[in-house]
Amino acid sequence: MANVYLKISYDGSNYSGWQVQANTSQTIQEKVEKVVSKFNNRPTRIYGASRTDAGVHAFGQRAQFQLEVDIPLAKIPQAFNGELPDDIVCLKAWQTPPDFHVRHDALAKKYIYRIYNRTYANVFLRKYSYHCYYDLKVADMVKAASYFTGEKDFSAFQAQGCSNSTTVKEIYQSRITPKDNGEIWLEVVGSGFLYKMMRIIAGTLINVGKGKLAPEDISSIIASQDRTKAGFTAPAKGLTLQEIYYDQEILAKEVKK
Amino acid sequence: MANVYLKISYDGSNYSGWQVQANTSQTIQEKVEKVVSKFNNRPTRIYGASRTDAGVHAFGQRAQFQLEVDIPLAKIPQAFNGELPDDIVCLKAWQTPPDFHVRHDALAKKYIYRIYNRTYANVFLRKYSYHCYYDLKVADMVKAASYFTGEKDFSAFQAQGCSNSTTVKEIYQSRITPKDNGEIWLEVVGSGFLYKMMRIIAGTLINVGKGKLAPEDISSIIASQDRTKAGFTAPAKGLTLQEIYYDQEILAKEVKK
Repeated sequence: MANVYLKISYDGSNYSGWQVQANTSQTIQEKVEKVVSKFNNRPTRIYGASRTDAGVHAFGQRAQFQLEVDIPLAKIPQAFNGELPDDIVCLKAWQTPPDFHVRHDALAKKYIYRIYNRTYANVFLRKYSYHCYYDLKVADMVKAASYFTGEKDFSAFQAQGCSNSTTVKEIYQSRITPKDNGEIWLEVVGSGFLYKMMRIIAGTLINVGKGKLAPEDISSIIASQDRTKAGFTAPAKGLTLQEIYYDQEILAKEVKK
Repeated sequence: MANVYLKISYDGSNYSGWQVQANTSQTIQEKVEKVVSKFNNRPTRIYGASRTDAGVHAFGQRAQFQLEVDIPLAKIPQAFNGELPDDIVCLKAWQTPPDFHVRHDALAKKYIYRIYNRTYANVFLRKYSYHCYYDLKVADMVKAASYFTGEKDFSAFQAQGCSNSTTVKEIYQSRITPKDNGEIWLEVVGSGFLYKMMRIIAGTLINVGKGKLAPEDISSIIASQDRTKAGFTAPAKGLTLQEIYYDQEILAKEVKK
């Protein structure tokens, strides 16, 4: 028996989000639990590091559970991928210390919000990038994105419907990068994120790109702690949970097998 | 009434290819014809520059037809996109000389074959890139790709089932490029392509990457004119018709509206 956690990627297009819900047949957690339970030969609960919303994607989600059969860690991804649907892929497995908690012990997360900024849609990105056909002022968005870094109260960028113990989060990196294929990527690394925070940041930066807000307005919007001052909640499909960071030294102590 | 041609992109995943077929309900040609016919208010045939196979994608396909209603060229993409399914997008429309032929007048085509070369699949590329988990020798593939350039008889790279007037084609560019995300792109520009030629070239280069063939073997395979000497036909989903090149000066003479 081992305390294990997985790195999992998924295309969220066809799911009602990560978390198992009553009356919802399609969640990612449920699909992964089904496979873990099959290997354990009994119903097994798994715990995700992040509860991604309906339609949101992940490249580096993490999921923790008790593995009760003897499979070498290196064999787990291939074994699980053989049972998972083709829009969910297990990339790696680690063994962890007994007191490790995949959500509480996460030090930081990286999200990417993708905007496709050409006149007509890109069929290959239609499920992974939000199509905005306005000619966005990218230089202004680059400047505006920089105002999010630091430890701040992000109440203005929190949707209703979730109670957080604190609305103060530290953003380590926030940057906008134009890509050759017509995309604009918003990449944000932070200690944590409030409910729909990343999508509200994206919507606010798109408003800057449209000229509805000046880059300097970001400071006063954050200071206002008023959700109505920030921009719209950008669509889920543009958002990807890219990576979650842990203290590798703590993990390494236990992973000797 | 005007002779018009469109630049069209599509995700070929859910189609039986470009061309209308008896007993097949889902072809891209049929979907576009339906829209053109609706605007013309009578059944209208369209002609594609390339008959892409089932599962093959296009960024720059071209389709020609007689437009019988008065719509400004610049308004056509938006008008058509409003009626097309979301996996087919019209990117541009041109008016052409009366004797223009979208297939015969194409000077060259560019195809891209995408290979995803990491251990586990990438969920976001699963429909657009062929997953090869062998650790491919990219430097050998780069060298091997260069042997395809020039005017040659490519009989060894032609699948049965299509009668071409000539098996001699000129390849202007053939290159392999590794990408940061784990993909390897094969980009080939040529005067024309034989049936499944691009996918057989891709399969042969993958065999070079696996060490089954040496880069220098490409010359003798081409010289053999023997299909059995070349590699496997790589899967359709990795292939995208990227661009088709026309003589813009000839087109420009007529496009004055």
